Amino acid sequence: MNRQELVQLIRERKSYLCIGLDTDIHKIPKHLLSHPDPIFAFNKAIIDATKDICVAYKINTAFYECLGIRGWESLQRTVEYIPKEIFTIADAKRGDIGNTSTYYAKTFYETYGFDSVTVAPYMGRDSVEPFLGFSEKWAIVLGLTSNEGSRDVQQLQLDGGFVYEKVMKTTASWGTPDNMMFVVGATKADVVADIRRLLPDHFFLVPGVGAQGGSLKEISEKGMNKEIGLLVNASRAVIYAGNDEKFAEDARAVALQYQAEMAGYIPA
Amino acid sequence: MNRQELVQLIRERKSYLCIGLDTDIHKIPKHLLSHPDPIFAFNKAIIDATKDICVAYKINTAFYECLGIRGWESLQRTVEYIPKEIFTIADAKRGDIGNTSTYYAKTFYETYGFDSVTVAPYMGRDSVEPFLGFSEKWAIVLGLTSNEGSRDVQQLQLDGGFVYEKVMKTTASWGTPDNMMFVVGATKADVVADIRRLLPDHFFLVPGVGAQGGSLKEISEKGMNKEIGLLVNASRAVIYAGNDEKFAEDARAVALQYQAEMAGYIPA
Repeated sequence: MNRQELVQLIRERKSYLCIGLDTDIHKIPKHLLSHPDPIFAFNKAIIDATKDICVAYKINTAFYECLGIRGWESLQRTVEYIPKEIFTIADAKRGDIGNTSTYYAKTFYETYGFDSVTVAPYMGRDSVEPFLGFSEKWAIVLGLTSNEGSRDVQQLQLDGGFVYEKVMKTTASWGTPDNMMFVVGATKADVVADIRRLLPDHFFLVPGVGAQGGSLKEISEKGMNKEIGLLVNASRAVIYAGNDEKFAEDARAVALQYQAEMAGYIPA
Repeated sequence: MNRQELVQLIRERKSYLCIGLDTDIHKIPKHLLSHPDPIFAFNKAIIDATKDICVAYKINTAFYECLGIRGWESLQRTVEYIPKEIFTIADAKRGDIGNTSTYYAKTFYETYGFDSVTVAPYMGRDSVEPFLGFSEKWAIVLGLTSNEGSRDVQQLQLDGGFVYEKVMKTTASWGTPDNMMFVVGATKADVVADIRRLLPDHFFLVPGVGAQGGSLKEISEKGMNKEIGLLVNASRAVIYAGNDEKFAEDARAVALQYQAEMAGYIPA
């Protein structure tokens, strides 16, 4: 999916909601466990209930990988089930030396058909660039994450700024706003305005709204650009809104609340 | 595997060779392609030919992941085939927020049974610690990598040192030399002595010897500690030593050269 299509989808749906399918076999409603593929059964119900409200689904691969091969089967079924007009994110946080990063890019873009994959920047340019050479595919580079540990590396002080600022500015120079986004944690809403000044044109994928405590209002005010430029992710707050037979309805209700709030922040 | 067992294995075999099973479907001998699982067939032959010479096998997951589910099947067969007395490394470079990192740890330690997994430190403490709470399992944290891109983040200058020095020193404080190692790139042999002073007790996993150009002699002189403290990885130089029916013999011959050289560096 290219940027024009994504922006158009956001405007049509008045939504920049990304739903995180962090589907944990230990947290899904018990009645699904008798299904041959409980993870997919859960995801299918969530997708059916929310596919007209959100503009992206993000699959954190850890929840699938830990189940071994059947986890990857659930992941593959899920990606294939997501309607093609919705943006898909493999939240896999990969990154390795050049040749190997190319294989990771192929894994998520081609083998599974995602539109994008999250990329860890610690290994630098030759670990990020291989994710940029695919038409209408996106590297979503970790910039400033929403967890406490972001202090340990990302927020180290350099001469003239923090590590994450240098990382984002440098990384941005290897690609364009058409093939690169950044992860920008929402628990630091005050910082988002600074990052938006640093990178006026890129999309930001913002986790940490909802269960992790960030404010949708603040992040929208501080992070939006003229093409919206935001995908705000909610995972647990949406997918575990309920825990019984009507879990998908409950998820839809919460997703609708997010969408309604977002609609108010999108300029006409 | 615990540290005493690893050190004992190194002393018995007079080898600190780790063989990287970076098995690329496009590079293995053509006659294997008719096998139902060519990747595993290749690995099995390499393991049979080298399992008395090396002390560790490192599997870079990217080469397997890009093949989708059948790639994971090849990976699983390979890990299960490696003799239990040999140290196994999932070179997966994972790292995510706490809960999610726990799932990655379980993936590699429990689902596939590896002794260790490589971890990317960009997300900080709560992304690394979940890999440390498993008995006789190891997080191998990216410190200074051997690629050019290591300049872009790792070698940024902080007040009082480089980012990679700060990362390694801080990260080391979250674990012990019994549950944590570091990746230290061998193309920077001059730097290895400094890192050894910084971290006298930890094992270093050293890629970049052989195809990437590092010197085994230099790295051994500068990196060894009183318990050896080194696992030196060779991937392409060993596994692609030959490309015909006798590829496994050719791999053995190269591995033996490494082992013979290493034997000369290990103090009696």
